Amino acid sequence: MGDNPASGADTVAEIGEFGLIRQATGDRPQPSTTLLGPGDDAAVVAAPDGRVVVATDALVEGVHFRLDWSTPTHVGRKAVAVNLADIAAMGAVPMSVVVTLACPADTPAAVATELLDGVAAEAKQAEVGVVGGDMVRADEIVVSVTALGDLGGRAPVTRSGARPGDIVAMCGRLGWAAAGLAVLGRGFRSPVNVVNAQRCPEPPYAAGPAAALAGATAMIDVSDGLLADLGHIAEASGVGIDVHTDKLTVAERLVDVSTALGADPLHWVLTGGEDHALVATFPPSTDLPEGWSIIGSVGEPDGGVTVDGGPYDRETGWQHWN
Amino acid sequence: MGDNPASGADTVAEIGEFGLIRQATGDRPQPSTTLLGPGDDAAVVAAPDGRVVVATDALVEGVHFRLDWSTPTHVGRKAVAVNLADIAAMGAVPMSVVVTLACPADTPAAVATELLDGVAAEAKQAEVGVVGGDMVRADEIVVSVTALGDLGGRAPVTRSGARPGDIVAMCGRLGWAAAGLAVLGRGFRSPVNVVNAQRCPEPPYAAGPAAALAGATAMIDVSDGLLADLGHIAEASGVGIDVHTDKLTVAERLVDVSTALGADPLHWVLTGGEDHALVATFPPSTDLPEGWSIIGSVGEPDGGVTVDGGPYDRETGWQHWN
Repeated sequence: MGDNPASGADTVAEIGEFGLIRQATGDRPQPSTTLLGPGDDAAVVAAPDGRVVVATDALVEGVHFRLDWSTPTHVGRKAVAVNLADIAAMGAVPMSVVVTLACPADTPAAVATELLDGVAAEAKQAEVGVVGGDMVRADEIVVSVTALGDLGGRAPVTRSGARPGDIVAMCGRLGWAAAGLAVLGRGFRSPVNVVNAQRCPEPPYAAGPAAALAGATAMIDVSDGLLADLGHIAEASGVGIDVHTDKLTVAERLVDVSTALGADPLHWVLTGGEDHALVATFPPSTDLPEGWSIIGSVGEPDGGVTVDGGPYDRETGWQHWN
Repeated sequence: MGDNPASGADTVAEIGEFGLIRQATGDRPQPSTTLLGPGDDAAVVAAPDGRVVVATDALVEGVHFRLDWSTPTHVGRKAVAVNLADIAAMGAVPMSVVVTLACPADTPAAVATELLDGVAAEAKQAEVGVVGGDMVRADEIVVSVTALGDLGGRAPVTRSGARPGDIVAMCGRLGWAAAGLAVLGRGFRSPVNVVNAQRCPEPPYAAGPAAALAGATAMIDVSDGLLADLGHIAEASGVGIDVHTDKLTVAERLVDVSTALGADPLHWVLTGGEDHALVATFPPSTDLPEGWSIIGSVGEPDGGVTVDGGPYDRETGWQHWN
């Protein structure tokens, strides 16, 4: 194999495992936290804080993405983004990812290399190193990523610290990925910014550490839907949470799309997953960091998660097997 | 779902994603390095050294294991063991693993829970925490593990530090997994200790940090075969390596099996993968740690990897896609 193992190769079988690993990781610039990059049995990453935050999440073809809806680059970016969002949701700064790519032997070489380029692109944007990986044969494409992050001396922000009287705030987009899914499901490919939101989220990574610094008492990223994920905070913290819909932003673009599709845009905002916005609770007097806005309040644990003081009776999220 | 989500459930779809995650990680004892265990967006692991070692490796049904040859428990143990061996091969002590389990929705609940029990069992034996995971639907079973380790103030032992004049030494078993594969391939299920070596390796985890302390100049775990993996050291270090077959142990049990199958046991020892023994190079005067024995020498980079001074002309390893 030469310096560019993909040149002239038609399938991943022709590139071979080691060629693909080089493709994924070789000659990529590494941030200063990467003390020993890819190419050995393991990598070494700086943990100046004396602790390391670790999260893992996988995307499966046909379950989490479709290659007739997303480009391989989108898939690679998304696989990294969903993990970095988990790191940010602890109040940590992402440092490194490792990636396992499973795919059929006859996968076009371009699909694998573009997917790995997407992994590298999202990592680069977040100033994160791709420090290792594994490439294996499987019946369909599975991208499994593990991300590491640094707390910078801060306490991790868990799901369990919300207290009655706290405010609930969010940063990022909600409902966009659900709208994009609805558009794609009808066979359309536009509006492209809505469709792209489904193809790859844009989590506000820096908002996680900023929220931790501002005193966030609990935090989570919205992967399953706002109400479902607030439910995780409510359950872990033993509190009730009320969402105030007058405080939620329903973007004009989502209203347009919902009108065209005969859908309810607020339902997308309340229950749509995969946008990976961050939601957090803060003490009531908190001066919220830039980008964060109040969307609700924390109360006693009798109500679970409510919307404008009452139950929300449509489905609140999804379980991957059901 | 109740406290024991598996009870009464027939398939993973019935247990559900969150139930399986609880099954994998809930109520498991955690070592002191686990500062925040599973159940949040991410875990927090101690990194007292200020650095963390990270490795990732996946096993795929039909490629790396067959459930008619291995129990789910073996598969779970192996998925962890191959990763902990990578950590040990850097001279680090494994601390934590995260695991992604992809499997069909109709996978029997018992298969998934036994596999996750295997993950927990190998982790427990190595005093490692299972700190997180993800469960996703896929067409076949894929187990992807990422392991973290601690260097305890030592420099990582890479593949690139071998120098002419160094000795080559190994710790652990070689050829056993290849013998087991040959036995299983003929439709036999015994000798059980040979067959079990293929089902799950027993890497000598503690021998890695011990070798680092003793001054190992390069180290790798034998996943692809002794000659193939020594080839990685030879290439990365820019040296030649000669293996002395009179120093290699060919266990009596392997001789028996090879006789029965008409095979060459030395070929298993030289080229068989999946035993995850550790091989390392040391300065010539090194007092080797317990369990390590000399098997060769490091020379000038003209010869690549040789056996008793000459080329070994049978295939030296395997590539997963070829």
